Formats: sequence, C-alpha cells, structure tokens
Amino acid sequence: MSYGMQLLDTYPRTFNVDTGVLAAAIDALNDCAQACTSDADDDLSEQNVPEMVKCIRLCLDCADVCHAMVQVISRQTEYDANVTRPLLEACTATCKSCADECEQHARMYAHCRVTAQACRRGEQACRDLLVAMR
Amino acid sequence: MSYGMQLLDTYPRTFNVDTGVLAAAIDALNDCAQACTSDADDDLSEQNVPEMVKCIRLCLDCADVCHAMVQVISRQTEYDANVTRPLLEACTATCKSCADECEQHARMYAHCRVTAQACRRGEQACRDLLVAMR
Amino acid sequence: MSYGMQLLDTYPRTFNVDTGVLAAAIDALNDCAQACTSDADDDLSEQNVPEMVKCIRLCLDCADVCHAMVQVISRQTEYDANVTRPLLEACTATCKSCADECEQHARMYAHCRVTAQACRRGEQACRDLLVAMR
Amino acid sequence: MSYGMQLLDTYPRTFNVDTGVLAAAIDALNDCAQACTSDADDDLSEQNVPEMVKCIRLCLDCADVCHAMVQVISRQTEYDANVTRPLLEACTATCKSCADECEQHARMYAHCRVTAQACRRGEQACRDLLVAMR
Repeated sequence: MSYGMQLLDTYPRTFNVDTGVLAAAIDALNDCAQACTSDADDDLSEQNVPEMVKCIRLCLDCADVCHAMVQVISRQTEYDANVTRPLLEACTATCKSCADECEQHARMYAHCRVTAQACRRGEQACRDLLVAMR
Repeated sequence: MSYGMQLLDTYPRTFNVDTGVLAAAIDALNDCAQACTSDADDDLSEQNVPEMVKCIRLCLDCADVCHAMVQVISRQTEYDANVTRPLLEACTATCKSCADECEQHARMYAHCRVTAQACRRGEQACRDLLVAMR
Repeated sequence: MSYGMQLLDTYPRTFNVDTGVLAAAIDALNDCAQACTSDADDDLSEQNVPEMVKCIRLCLDCADVCHAMVQVISRQTEYDANVTRPLLEACTATCKSCADECEQHARMYAHCRVTAQACRRGEQACRDLLVAMR
Repeated sequence: MSYGMQLLDTYPRTFNVDTGVLAAAIDALNDCAQACTSDADDDLSEQNVPEMVKCIRLCLDCADVCHAMVQVISRQTEYDANVTRPLLEACTATCKSCADECEQHARMYAHCRVTAQACRRGEQACRDLLVAMR
C-alpha cells in the first residue's frame, strides 16, 4: 500500500471524497510527474532532439502541473473547491496534451510510449476525481 | 528591468502575446508564490495558529499553483493554449481564494496584508494575460 | 514495475550508476515528498497544532528538497556530479531531520509514524546512491 | 521593496540572521530560478539545440534547486541548520555549474548572458547567506 493511501487512512478528520479515488489520483499524478521529467530528459538524449522539442516542452509543463496537483490534493484540511476543481480541469487538459504528443513518438521511442501511458493514467485519475468530488 | 523581461526580449523566436503583459505576469506570480510561502510560515509562528489553519493551507496551495504557472508561461517554445488557458483560470481562482482569506487577517497581521496584495496582483496578472492571449 | 525503472531501462544512452539503485532512489524520494506534504497537512488538522509546528515546517522543507532531488536524478543527460553529490548530501540530512522529528510524534499519530518511515527510506536511498555514484 | 523584505519585516518572531542578507538571497534565488526556466526554453528554440543540451539540463536543475532553496529560506519558524546549510552548499554549487555553462554561450546568445548573470548573483547570495549564518 502506498504512503498516499496510508496517510489518507490516518488523516485526523473526515473528508467528503472516496478515499480510494483520491489515493489513486495522488499516486497516478505523482508517477506521471516523475515520468514526464524523465521523458523530457530522454528526449534531450535522442539524436534527433530538434524533432522532440514540442514533446520536451509539454513534458516539462506536465511535470510541473501534475506536481502542483499532487500537492493540492494531498491537502485535505480546509478543502476549497474553488482551488481544486479548476486545477483538476487544467491538469486533465495538460495530461491529455502531453499524452497526445508522446503517442506521436511511441512507435519510435519506448520512453515516450511509457510516458504516454503515465499521462493517460493521470488524465483518467483527474476525471475520476472530478466525478467523485461532485 | 527584471530577468523575466530581459529573457523575453532575447527569446530567439517571436511569440503572439504582448511582452509587457507576459513579463508582468511572470514577475507578479513569482513574487506571489514566494510571498505565500513566507506567509504560511509567518502564520505558523503566530500564537493563535489554530485560527490560521485555513490561511496556511491556502497559502501553500497558492504558492504551488503560482509556481507551476510561472514555469508554464516562462516557456514560449511550442506554446499550447490547451495547457496555458485552463491553468490561468485555475491560478486566477487560487490567487482569489488566497487573497480573500489573507484579507480576513489583514487588520491583525501585517504579513497577511502584504500577502493579500501579492495575491491580488497575481490574480489581476492572470486576468490580464488571459485577455492578452485572446 | 514503476515508471521510474521503465524509463531508466528505455534511456537512449548509457549511464554509470546501477539502474536498480537509481530507480529505488527516484521512487523512495518521490514517495517521501508526497508523504511529507500529506503529513504537514495532517498535522494542521490535529487539535494540538501549536505542538506540531516544528514537524509541519520540517515536512514542508523535506517535501521541497526531495522533489528537487527527484527532478535532478531523473535527468541523466549531461550528468554533473558537482550538482548531484552535494544535493544528495543535503537531501540525506533533510530526510534525517524530518524523520527524527516525525518519530517524536509516532506514538501519538499514525500519520507521523508512516511519514517517519517514508523519510528513513528516503534517507537510506540517498546514502545508497551516494555510494553507488563513487 | 520586494515582498520578501516586507514579509521578513513583519515576521512575528525574531531570527538570528541579517534581514538584508536573507531578503537578498530570497530575491536573487527566486529570480535565478525563473531565469533558468526561461533560458532552458530559449535554448530549445535555438537552431543548434543539440549543442545546447548540457545548458538546458543544467538550467532545469538550477531552476529546481533554487526554487527549493527559496522555499526553505522563506521559512524561519523552527529554523534547522542541518537542513539549510547543506542545501545552501548544494545551491551554491548548482548556480556555479549553471553559470559556468551559460557563460560558454554568452557571446552567441544574449539569453545565456542574462542567465549567467542571474546564476552568478544566486551563487554569491548563497555564499553571503552561509557567512551570515555562521
């Protein structure tokens, strides 16, 4: 069991969202952030780096947005939907853009294939959490 | 002149948004992120820290979201509106929530007054950039 | 298998450190960063928040340092020991300080017990990577 | 006057380091983080991006380390030298490595010249703070 789930289980107050959905989102987005950081670096090591510029840029963005998202949803105290909901919308869109781009390179580069999967999982986790928060 | 403006002026390509509006947003949000990090810490040092919990939490969120926003708008290469626009919406809302909360404490605490100003400036900078990007 | 390991396995170049040790450090520190963010928030929800101020502060620091560490060791291209080694020393020390503090509260709070484990694992992962990089 | 200085002036407790030196470090490192994020992106837009890979990588690292450093020194509550001092050593080394690399490209690229200055200022600010903390 990940620390994310354990820490939700030991949270001193109650919260109004399904713990499993929340823990899954924390894990998926934390993994996605790291995968995107790695993939941007992998792209920099490829011989045709000029063709990978768009992928690098989107991976850097996706890493930053997913990291901020993990930070915000890891905090349950004084939950503010005005902060969380639009950020989930933004994170969904960012994961989608990054997944779309990584998929363009998935046949040629295994690292882009792995990262596309991480982004799709992050995108879905955001959508699931948006539904669970309704 | 800030590095933000100098680096936009020396960017090797062209970009489709007003440089002044973009540089102002970078500076305002970078300042806001740091102010919120400081204010969360200031709140932790106050004697009535239990009353400051909501302010601490929102300041932590606002610091993370503004930092991600600065990262994304500092990147002009392969600009993707699908990433930038919803994140600007989220950042506007986060700065607003944090400013609203800091203003509740502005009479009692000078640090919350300063931080409320930083958040309002960040909020406005996001709105201005959203208009400029249209 | 984590994305961290998969992305190291698909890295286009070679690198001079044991892949297993590096992947373990990436996973341990990414998990630790998230656990510390959660624990700072858990502490904020406790009734005796004034007694938890030191723990909150160290958790916030540990989250930030571990995140920067994950970012740096996720990048293998143009590896620079002058950057990585002192940061690993700093991250070891930060994980240790945070673990020591969390252990003070481990009997009373399950979330601090979990976080202390995450920090000890992060501390050990940094030490192992420092040895592996020699 | 920056928010950094204003927030140190309104901090509810006392702290044992010169306020001016601390505020200067916060400002220099926050500026340096943003400059490095911009410069990595500027490099990605250059035609000879393969020659800029080392510069991109170091700028990404420097942005992450400087950001973590700003976070840690923005927190004065329950100051822990075991965390701050080794991180300042790491940040000094990272700013130096990044400045050295940016200076290699300073003649050809104005954005690298600006960023080298930002990194040197960050490096010096870390050194000054290390002295002030003794």
